[in-house]
Amino acid sequence: MIFASDNWSGAHPAINEAMARESAGMAAAYGESVLDKAVEKRFDEIFERKVAVFFVGTGTAANSLAFAAVNRPGGVVLCHREAHVIEDECGAPEFFTHGARMAPVDGANGKIDPDNLRRELARFKPDFVHAGQPMAVTISQPGEAGTLYSAAEIEAIAAITHERGLALHMDGARFANGLVADGRSPADMTWRHGVDILSFGATKNGCWCAEAVVFFDPAKAEQFRYIRKRGAQLFSKTRFVAAQFMAYLENGRWLDMAADANRMADRLRAGLDASAAGRQAWPTRSNEIFAVFPRETAERLRAGGAVFYDWNAPHSMHNITGPDESLVRLVTSWSTSEADVDQFLALLGTL
Amino acid sequence: MIFASDNWSGAHPAINEAMARESAGMAAAYGESVLDKAVEKRFDEIFERKVAVFFVGTGTAANSLAFAAVNRPGGVVLCHREAHVIEDECGAPEFFTHGARMAPVDGANGKIDPDNLRRELARFKPDFVHAGQPMAVTISQPGEAGTLYSAAEIEAIAAITHERGLALHMDGARFANGLVADGRSPADMTWRHGVDILSFGATKNGCWCAEAVVFFDPAKAEQFRYIRKRGAQLFSKTRFVAAQFMAYLENGRWLDMAADANRMADRLRAGLDASAAGRQAWPTRSNEIFAVFPRETAERLRAGGAVFYDWNAPHSMHNITGPDESLVRLVTSWSTSEADVDQFLALLGTL
Amino acid sequence: MIFASDNWSGAHPAINEAMARESAGMAAAYGESVLDKAVEKRFDEIFERKVAVFFVGTGTAANSLAFAAVNRPGGVVLCHREAHVIEDECGAPEFFTHGARMAPVDGANGKIDPDNLRRELARFKPDFVHAGQPMAVTISQPGEAGTLYSAAEIEAIAAITHERGLALHMDGARFANGLVADGRSPADMTWRHGVDILSFGATKNGCWCAEAVVFFDPAKAEQFRYIRKRGAQLFSKTRFVAAQFMAYLENGRWLDMAADANRMADRLRAGLDASAAGRQAWPTRSNEIFAVFPRETAERLRAGGAVFYDWNAPHSMHNITGPDESLVRLVTSWSTSEADVDQFLALLGTL
Amino acid sequence: MIFASDNWSGAHPAINEAMARESAGMAAAYGESVLDKAVEKRFDEIFERKVAVFFVGTGTAANSLAFAAVNRPGGVVLCHREAHVIEDECGAPEFFTHGARMAPVDGANGKIDPDNLRRELARFKPDFVHAGQPMAVTISQPGEAGTLYSAAEIEAIAAITHERGLALHMDGARFANGLVADGRSPADMTWRHGVDILSFGATKNGCWCAEAVVFFDPAKAEQFRYIRKRGAQLFSKTRFVAAQFMAYLENGRWLDMAADANRMADRLRAGLDASAAGRQAWPTRSNEIFAVFPRETAERLRAGGAVFYDWNAPHSMHNITGPDESLVRLVTSWSTSEADVDQFLALLGTL
Repeated sequence: MIFASDNWSGAHPAINEAMARESAGMAAAYGESVLDKAVEKRFDEIFERKVAVFFVGTGTAANSLAFAAVNRPGGVVLCHREAHVIEDECGAPEFFTHGARMAPVDGANGKIDPDNLRRELARFKPDFVHAGQPMAVTISQPGEAGTLYSAAEIEAIAAITHERGLALHMDGARFANGLVADGRSPADMTWRHGVDILSFGATKNGCWCAEAVVFFDPAKAEQFRYIRKRGAQLFSKTRFVAAQFMAYLENGRWLDMAADANRMADRLRAGLDASAAGRQAWPTRSNEIFAVFPRETAERLRAGGAVFYDWNAPHSMHNITGPDESLVRLVTSWSTSEADVDQFLALLGTL
Repeated sequence: MIFASDNWSGAHPAINEAMARESAGMAAAYGESVLDKAVEKRFDEIFERKVAVFFVGTGTAANSLAFAAVNRPGGVVLCHREAHVIEDECGAPEFFTHGARMAPVDGANGKIDPDNLRRELARFKPDFVHAGQPMAVTISQPGEAGTLYSAAEIEAIAAITHERGLALHMDGARFANGLVADGRSPADMTWRHGVDILSFGATKNGCWCAEAVVFFDPAKAEQFRYIRKRGAQLFSKTRFVAAQFMAYLENGRWLDMAADANRMADRLRAGLDASAAGRQAWPTRSNEIFAVFPRETAERLRAGGAVFYDWNAPHSMHNITGPDESLVRLVTSWSTSEADVDQFLALLGTL
Repeated sequence: MIFASDNWSGAHPAINEAMARESAGMAAAYGESVLDKAVEKRFDEIFERKVAVFFVGTGTAANSLAFAAVNRPGGVVLCHREAHVIEDECGAPEFFTHGARMAPVDGANGKIDPDNLRRELARFKPDFVHAGQPMAVTISQPGEAGTLYSAAEIEAIAAITHERGLALHMDGARFANGLVADGRSPADMTWRHGVDILSFGATKNGCWCAEAVVFFDPAKAEQFRYIRKRGAQLFSKTRFVAAQFMAYLENGRWLDMAADANRMADRLRAGLDASAAGRQAWPTRSNEIFAVFPRETAERLRAGGAVFYDWNAPHSMHNITGPDESLVRLVTSWSTSEADVDQFLALLGTL
Repeated sequence: MIFASDNWSGAHPAINEAMARESAGMAAAYGESVLDKAVEKRFDEIFERKVAVFFVGTGTAANSLAFAAVNRPGGVVLCHREAHVIEDECGAPEFFTHGARMAPVDGANGKIDPDNLRRELARFKPDFVHAGQPMAVTISQPGEAGTLYSAAEIEAIAAITHERGLALHMDGARFANGLVADGRSPADMTWRHGVDILSFGATKNGCWCAEAVVFFDPAKAEQFRYIRKRGAQLFSKTRFVAAQFMAYLENGRWLDMAADANRMADRLRAGLDASAAGRQAWPTRSNEIFAVFPRETAERLRAGGAVFYDWNAPHSMHNITGPDESLVRLVTSWSTSEADVDQFLALLGTL
């Protein structure tokens, strides 16, 4: 009954097999092997266009180095007020950009509100050196709140972003879960609606350590080789990442795994809705659920073996919990079983 | 006949098996799993004392973050003039320390000369703010030139380093190869002779991606958890690194692999010495060899299938090559076979 | 009729005279002259205790380097959502701290609300590496909104700040104006109520270029000499700053100048209140006023020779202006005359 | 008898007068005043072409921000091994460039040897990400060793620099002293022979605090406004710098002052050559002299009231002093008198 995070899961057997298979013999290091190149081509197919793709080791690295690629002196990245890049990366985005500011934009359900984005951007007058200069907008899909931007919402944000000549970045730490929840193709989820750079995460969904930065506009990637190396993210044996991606993207495995995770989340959501012992904090999709439990219920669940984290309430909902309640996050993964979910719900008293 | 680098080798089957074995089930992320903790204990045993150990993804990260841990404003790291941290890390050490300077110290055979070190340090008067403040000395063992510091040499450098209150860091990207070449224990190679921090590399010697920063003085590690996370080097599924180290350090496997690599290098050295077609540039030990070939010999070897890199001459030996000669580097690895070496020597005309 | 900013004013004749007087002869550079030391002692007297004081060139430098002095990896500074350090320093605080985050705290009237501060800090669980680590709280006195914290408010914020072991920094770009408006002594405004570090600004109030970082806890200043030099803020001829401070602090000149500025602001406030052509956006003290004018009134004033800036509305008041209105800022200085104010009010139709 | 540094001198009366004159009334802040614009035009005249000029507060800032303007990820600046940017700026160049490396190039007399520069640059293979990427070459004119590059030497260095597409920067902390010593015009000393960016220093030569970054290629200055503000070097009352430059550049005052300083240095050199009590360490021009004295002579001079600094020997001359000798630096300034020099020489026993 581990619902702490999808990164508590291990790796899919097919991932391990691919790594074992590719471990034989010598191959060019630093991303130049035949396998590396073959996997880069797979990304072109997946996204239905030529992309520039760079493997890195962590989602934090993917986001931070992506910002570095489009940074300018006094640079500002606009993001949701509770974005992962603000709340959970220990200042890495600021560090890798030598101090670009992550400027918070409010919005319900963990999503940037386009009107607020427009208003925030209007605070930056062109050539007004004191305020710094916006250089990117970033959205998470799915977001930290377990919600999804619609195609129309992404388009609205992209329009505002591009109007100011900024780059639109998507944090896709759970990209596959978003695709499956929404039924959109990778291209539709990204560049066809205006996304310029994607942090493509696979670690949480059945890999060991496989993240990539995907540039839909190769011009933005011009200096990225140096940015990645200077950022200590150029692995020597990159084929260990390439091998993971190869197995991950093979025959729709990545989407199957994400679908499994999402299905378990749906089962959990249904159980929560049927229970009087807790409630969903807000509607979610994909594989994250936020619930409010009486504190003693949360303790009882934990005592029964369930593992999950307390969660900081969104700024706009800081009264979401009553005095004796906890806001918690429940995450399912590709390896969550029905038994895990049902055992949890049984503890909760739903089953 | 790949002698390009030991990081062109793959992973040892035992490494893959360990990863596959540990991939089942859920485990705490971010270094908190049972396996992570067990491997941390293994490091204590290996080094015969309590150490603070942190897994990271690349050798560049290990070195750079180690410097960050002991950095001060205007910090200066003294290193050999051709140290890896200067020549081959794209400025990462400077970047992760917000601009600490890597101050070059001359010395024969790729090793810091203690007299030169003392003279360089004397340039920094205490409290003279303009020069900045030294904060560490770093040595590579084995060094980039394929040579080894003796215990006495390390002690001499450590004495000078500690006299000024600085930290002594060892870049052990090929630590096992050095241990085996020298017959010393890990403790003797490091803290017993004054090393404070070690970059412990395993990737080049049969792992996929397994590097660690080892602090023999835990006080220096106090802020390292934040430094590592901010540096985007805290993997979520750290057990994939832990599993590699577990298998690596099991039953002396790491030393066996290093011994294999060194033995192949010895075979190559012997063949070179027996050949009239080239010469060793300088005496080496461990698994790196530097050779001078007539340019057409180098071309012929490459045409025959040998892979190796041209190398920048040390500053003090910039006339080492004649007008039609090349300086090249040859590296063996745990997976280099006798056949590889013999085929190379046959091409060279030795066999 | 210049109300653009108090930094549009020149320097007081006494400042120029002091500089001319001190320009004769040789004196030790880099802060070691007799004059430098004498002025440092003056700061001890002004603050009724031993302080560590460092001259720098800009208020941005004072704030940014102060944060650098107490920074930690993944550091976070809590500040008001519309603080100068966020809105008007082009990312310098983030830059000089290698990416510390300026975390916004909401609060009415440009002042941090203690409850909100407590709630924001509670988001940072001890040892939770992902969120980073708070290292300071900063308040502006007077604030960007022209308001003042009471002694009780500062004490409340200091208590919360120190409970978490953080440093409390005060941005005193207009410190003298705040002192005069509030009738408090420098010691009462700062360390007696818990302020640890002060950016002491004199430029806006009659100097050319005279800012200082004052540490009430000298331990926090230990590395500051290096931080300042590395930050390119160690002037060679520091006595040009010292001379300014000497004249500035002589016989209460600094408070007299600030009192003049504040009096002119009071006159302007009274005139605005008497006018039907505009309104104060919110109540202010000291020498800043925020007004809402019909856009055509603002244009008329400008056409008549008045100079002032449009201003971004606070986030919590983004509807403060009607569709055809502008929010503007009016600042008086030591050199603002009654005639300036009266001419402005005449244009407005008040006089 | 102060020969410690030219920055121990004060300011010329004409500088003070200009500041006093410009202190009256209001003027646009942040470089937008009428005076600022007029002085910018003066720079065009001085250099006989349109330049982009930016005032900053210190020479360290000028150099560091100039490098930031042309920086790239993993950037490398090639400079003389004993350049001021390496030896005396506390890591500021590395800090402001987020870790660009100052790569030392050897050369006699404090000057980069073109052959060595070519050899160093050859170590950086195009697209070899590990080594980083050179982005600039910097020379000091006059250099830290008190010597001057000839026009032909600058041209040779510029040719090598531009061949690799790099920027050539000149550190002109004592630019006027160099011009006067060499009899060249500002244009001839810089862009006509290939210099792209100049750190134009006036502080040491009779100003208080007046430094400028001059871009001969305005395209390189595109982001400089943001770089300067983020670097805390945008003064609010910039006219205090502009006023200094106005008086400095008026009627050749800057060259007259430099000529005075150089003349006093010549007098000192002549006296040293005539003395048996010490010797010039190497031939110098402009206003710096390096001398070797028996240690007891140095002590005697200091006891007699002379002030000067011991100096680190160049790496290539580390045996320049005998066991009981000191290498010292003597610097004259615009305000050094014949009496100062003669009194010093009398102490030395020459007069």
